[in-house]
Amino acid sequence: MPEIVPLEWTGEALRILDQTKLPQEQAVVVARTYVDVANAIKGMQVRGAPAIGVAGAYAMALAAKAVATSDVRRLQGYLAEAGQQVTAARPTAVNLAWAVKRVLKAAANAASVGEVRQRLEGEATAIHREDIAANRRMGVLGSELLPKEGTVLTHCNAGALATGGYGTALGVIRAAWEKHRNLRVLATETRPLLQGARLTAWELTQMGIPTHLVVDSAAGSLMARGEVACVVVGADRIAANGDTANKIGTYTLAVVAHENNVPFYVVAPTSTLDLSAATGESIPIEERSPDEVLLWGARMIAPKGMAVRNPAFDVTPARYISAIITERGVVRPPYGEGLQKLVAE
Amino acid sequence: MPEIVPLEWTGEALRILDQTKLPQEQAVVVARTYVDVANAIKGMQVRGAPAIGVAGAYAMALAAKAVATSDVRRLQGYLAEAGQQVTAARPTAVNLAWAVKRVLKAAANAASVGEVRQRLEGEATAIHREDIAANRRMGVLGSELLPKEGTVLTHCNAGALATGGYGTALGVIRAAWEKHRNLRVLATETRPLLQGARLTAWELTQMGIPTHLVVDSAAGSLMARGEVACVVVGADRIAANGDTANKIGTYTLAVVAHENNVPFYVVAPTSTLDLSAATGESIPIEERSPDEVLLWGARMIAPKGMAVRNPAFDVTPARYISAIITERGVVRPPYGEGLQKLVAE
Repeated sequence: MPEIVPLEWTGEALRILDQTKLPQEQAVVVARTYVDVANAIKGMQVRGAPAIGVAGAYAMALAAKAVATSDVRRLQGYLAEAGQQVTAARPTAVNLAWAVKRVLKAAANAASVGEVRQRLEGEATAIHREDIAANRRMGVLGSELLPKEGTVLTHCNAGALATGGYGTALGVIRAAWEKHRNLRVLATETRPLLQGARLTAWELTQMGIPTHLVVDSAAGSLMARGEVACVVVGADRIAANGDTANKIGTYTLAVVAHENNVPFYVVAPTSTLDLSAATGESIPIEERSPDEVLLWGARMIAPKGMAVRNPAFDVTPARYISAIITERGVVRPPYGEGLQKLVAE
Repeated sequence: MPEIVPLEWTGEALRILDQTKLPQEQAVVVARTYVDVANAIKGMQVRGAPAIGVAGAYAMALAAKAVATSDVRRLQGYLAEAGQQVTAARPTAVNLAWAVKRVLKAAANAASVGEVRQRLEGEATAIHREDIAANRRMGVLGSELLPKEGTVLTHCNAGALATGGYGTALGVIRAAWEKHRNLRVLATETRPLLQGARLTAWELTQMGIPTHLVVDSAAGSLMARGEVACVVVGADRIAANGDTANKIGTYTLAVVAHENNVPFYVVAPTSTLDLSAATGESIPIEERSPDEVLLWGARMIAPKGMAVRNPAFDVTPARYISAIITERGVVRPPYGEGLQKLVAE
């Protein structure tokens, strides 16, 4: 199976597999400036918390290359501002802010402009490499929790496309599949932007894992009918108590899973942890354009001028989550203690 | 406000407002034979449990007109067969079978072909008239349960379009709105066929009731945020114990409402009761074409050949339902007793 490469660093540019065009078209956006990257993040040509973290890190490497100066202080001032712009591209996934902070910190005490550039690029590629390694490790750890056979439900896309490569939730499914070849997947289409239908279905099809697609609202009743062995999702930000922000609809799936005693697993690298957020209440929830709901291509699905609520994420309280799978280990409730320990290690 | 007329009987044909074309186009299908009506029901040009009941009754009147015979027995044989075909058009909503049975029973001991025809037409128009009256009565009864202000969540379309006229769930919202003018509605788009975005949004806009549209999976988190005062939905079949089949996604909304202490009301005429079904387990759930999920016009939203599960309905166990509002009264748990009493009256 050819690996899906969502992001490719050329040394001069970041090549982004355009996720708004998949699966019909495999187009690549070549981002040559940090603004190009920020726009690709805003426009969701690259999406998924770990992936936008990696992209954000490379954006800073591009920013440093663009300034014609030999004054390292001037460069640092410029980078601080660029970092704010990149971070602001999307508010909910903490990985973006985390990655920008991490690369800037790596370059903080560099002595020259050349060294700043080198360190930024080095740290960005390290973040990328580490993210793929983290995914593979989560795959190994998470596959232990999955049943040897049965149907795994996943929501949105937490696959190779959503990460530096390999995938979080889909990485776990993939690792389990490679062991037993006896799983089936139920993928929610994930309105409004259909990441499940367009991206997850595409990735699973390429892997040869038997998959059925459902509309989002059908998942609950299939759980009630006993057709789902467990739910596996990614995350955009995990608070200190385990409350988890993820794609809109995750909360609802978690409540219904809980009601039906279906295990509900969150898979995310430690870069998704935000221990400065005590609970999910302080996680900012991005509200996106009504047009995402109202328009299908050029066609309007509702009466003209229809008002819309379009929160892109929701928060799943920790009490509905059976385990959080990270690259440093599997955390079970109570999460407060377990997550603190992970980070301290 | 002009009344929305989903079905109009001309004496020669049934004029059906084509619900697959709304809201872009207000086209009318003129059904001149019972097969035309059955096809319009299958194709969902007319949908909604009470509406397909009314349409099914008129289908029988059309069937009787089509046979050139003076032999009343031959006619009855033909009608029995036509009735089976009409009933088979959609399996979940019991109103269709109920209406066909009722008109056939009304004509059962007619002495002549002319009398059969007259009785069928008379009974069909009675069913239509009674359905509108039932909706208005449910509106009055249900409006007492709604808060004087706040947001009411509804799913799919249980409006004038889904009935003989006026609406069940939307009838209740409309009656409450007419009293206090202080409600807002949150309408789920209702994938795959978007009855919420296309039909409910259209009806509420015409009534001037402030409405926001959301993707189906956003409703749960808005309940969790305390933004929903109550949920009001229609029904396709209610079992003797109160278990309720309704549009896919209803079960999930009910579970999340229950989890958040949000009252969950089902609004349906007594023609939707099926006391021969002890529980929801014996209600047949229609599984519709994958294309409903996969295609948007001519455009495919998933990889080619993607497998799909497309159950059109789900069953909400009675324990999640706060009350069932019928034209004969509001029933509270335990439903077994209350529903029996309603029917006995």
